[in-house]
Amino acid sequence: MSDTNTLRPAWSSMAAGLPEDVLGPILANGTKPGIISFGGGLPSPEGFPTKELERAAEWCLEAMPKRALQYSDPQGEPELRAEIAKYENGRGNPTDPDNVAVVTGSQQALDLAARIFVNPGDAIMVQRPTYVGALEAFNLSQPRYVEMPEDEEGTAPALIGDEADGVKFAYILATFSNPTGRTMTVERRKQLIEKAREHRFWIVEDDPYGELWYHRKPPVSIQSLAPDCTIRFCSFSKVLAPGMRLGYITGPKEVIRMFAKAQSYAVLSTPCITQLMAAKVMADGLFSYHLDDIRRIYRAHAEAMLAALDEFMPKHPGISWTHPEGGMFIWLTLPEGIDTMKLLPEAIEQGLLYVPGSTFYGNSPESHQMRLSFVTVSEEKIREGVKRLAALISSKL
Amino acid sequence: MSDTNTLRPAWSSMAAGLPEDVLGPILANGTKPGIISFGGGLPSPEGFPTKELERAAEWCLEAMPKRALQYSDPQGEPELRAEIAKYENGRGNPTDPDNVAVVTGSQQALDLAARIFVNPGDAIMVQRPTYVGALEAFNLSQPRYVEMPEDEEGTAPALIGDEADGVKFAYILATFSNPTGRTMTVERRKQLIEKAREHRFWIVEDDPYGELWYHRKPPVSIQSLAPDCTIRFCSFSKVLAPGMRLGYITGPKEVIRMFAKAQSYAVLSTPCITQLMAAKVMADGLFSYHLDDIRRIYRAHAEAMLAALDEFMPKHPGISWTHPEGGMFIWLTLPEGIDTMKLLPEAIEQGLLYVPGSTFYGNSPESHQMRLSFVTVSEEKIREGVKRLAALISSKL
Repeated sequence: MSDTNTLRPAWSSMAAGLPEDVLGPILANGTKPGIISFGGGLPSPEGFPTKELERAAEWCLEAMPKRALQYSDPQGEPELRAEIAKYENGRGNPTDPDNVAVVTGSQQALDLAARIFVNPGDAIMVQRPTYVGALEAFNLSQPRYVEMPEDEEGTAPALIGDEADGVKFAYILATFSNPTGRTMTVERRKQLIEKAREHRFWIVEDDPYGELWYHRKPPVSIQSLAPDCTIRFCSFSKVLAPGMRLGYITGPKEVIRMFAKAQSYAVLSTPCITQLMAAKVMADGLFSYHLDDIRRIYRAHAEAMLAALDEFMPKHPGISWTHPEGGMFIWLTLPEGIDTMKLLPEAIEQGLLYVPGSTFYGNSPESHQMRLSFVTVSEEKIREGVKRLAALISSKL
Repeated sequence: MSDTNTLRPAWSSMAAGLPEDVLGPILANGTKPGIISFGGGLPSPEGFPTKELERAAEWCLEAMPKRALQYSDPQGEPELRAEIAKYENGRGNPTDPDNVAVVTGSQQALDLAARIFVNPGDAIMVQRPTYVGALEAFNLSQPRYVEMPEDEEGTAPALIGDEADGVKFAYILATFSNPTGRTMTVERRKQLIEKAREHRFWIVEDDPYGELWYHRKPPVSIQSLAPDCTIRFCSFSKVLAPGMRLGYITGPKEVIRMFAKAQSYAVLSTPCITQLMAAKVMADGLFSYHLDDIRRIYRAHAEAMLAALDEFMPKHPGISWTHPEGGMFIWLTLPEGIDTMKLLPEAIEQGLLYVPGSTFYGNSPESHQMRLSFVTVSEEKIREGVKRLAALISSKL
């Protein structure tokens, strides 16, 4: 096929304005042999319930092939929505199947949220820092960002002021945040809800990591405290497998109907076969034993990294890191002079990968932080990688 | 979950402007017991290669579970793109794997095309009539429509004039069109390309039905005649199964890269497991025997409906229908006074479903046509359904 375009594509202003993909090349680098990658946001394949999914695929294609291979309900297969509702009720989130829409991975929920709420130039409120993939999905709808105030404990909703007027929704990772690993206290969750009611914005609670707690369950969801103004996104990528591309949205029925409508126009539906597979493994009780296994794996890796940081990191007043109680990430802060983006090529030379902190900001990025992901790296390599990282940082002090 | 929204959602202008879903309720009605539905656009489940897909799922989850269940390349898994390139080269469409992007059903390709080319108010050129699902996907980007001129043989590109200036792309179903079943001649394809070069618009060639020919292969693709200014969409929904939600785009590399970028921000990637399943069945040679089976099924159903129309339809100068040489649809034209939308409730009362023709127009709908789909209805019921339809129409003459 010829690539000599006599006719240049006249892109939309959205497409013309898309920045280069930041995460893609980093993830690509992470697959080179020999490199120790703290860069990926990928769940650990150790935790994939392969056998259960294989049996579920076989079951779907034996018991209901014509249905599993046909188009699906745009809102999601009824069996899966029923299983999700049961599961969420068990987690303390009162949910009816009609409060659930299934999406093709929670990334699609982020994109759809921006599309149905945001006109170009409308404001979305985001944390400092926040999930880069959410910013990328939102950017397709050309919003502006208002950043949430912060204090030494992280996001500080009590400090939200008039900058929140006109905000369409606040996008919040309240539990085991990406990229910081931090968790918002119940008190701060309630403060956020107060501010949402005062300034009349919706809360989009992104909750892909809530089940990945190490020792104790995280605080109640924001949605359970304010179901009338909260939309919550959950993902099967961490508790099942990302290759299924399955996530779901819970919220008031009116909002769910709009998500399902936009979904039906954008992709018709999420694949039916993967939905029925997920419904089957849930109905068979997978989560009752599987989640404990995942938690054990993730906890061991987190502890290995925290121990290595304690052991190797230079004792310096400008160096600190978060101590997550669940999830996949540690947020490392370095002295202000060290630019982690500029440091990255040197790190890669040392066989080490991380994500520079500046990629995680809606507006004014800070440059002296990095996100460390530990779940796909063996405990031995975590120790070796942190040792290399500490040596590299020491050389810059 | 409470539904008393104290805070009403402030939808984007796009969401607020979304019309009610037309196809959804029609498809829903089609599943009621006793009804004979010529309404669905669903492929026949008789043609699903269930056993092959079951073996492919087993193979993926045995041979490469960690990969099949992990995130995928946003442009699509390399094995699947290689198989697609090989297959398209065999069909006379010179294609390199880098000219291919995999999408979550070709509906997603329609949505992405509008997003990356169209600012609100920009023009898309469409046929009269055209695929309603494409209009729905495009509407998410708020375009305006310019309709292609037509003559007694259908779309007439030679008549395109200055109304094409500024059009971002022309959306064309050239082969076994939805909804008419018509196929554009090679001469008209070349005329369209001339007009595209003259007025500098791209051609989006939607080609989901090309393999569903009854007796002889359709004309060469528009893309093979003008690869520099054509983007082509293909679907696995008809040749494999729609529940997989797999489609692909072929085009110049620059355009493919933009599709992949938008795709990565919107959904990260298409599910990996379904992609590897499709690559496996293609590598195992499924299409070499499977497509003949599908063609045989579709041809038999088309012939049954054409025979029934000949037998039962009133002989009236205002009544005519298309004679498709492939695909899934027949387009029935009635005398101008008969409004098929108004007739629909009566048809449903008679246990009969079709899609009113007025849903298939970008701008000025005509009301006296209907789309008849025959592939999911048994030959016996096709005859009975057409008999009922003919009686209903006779009563209105």
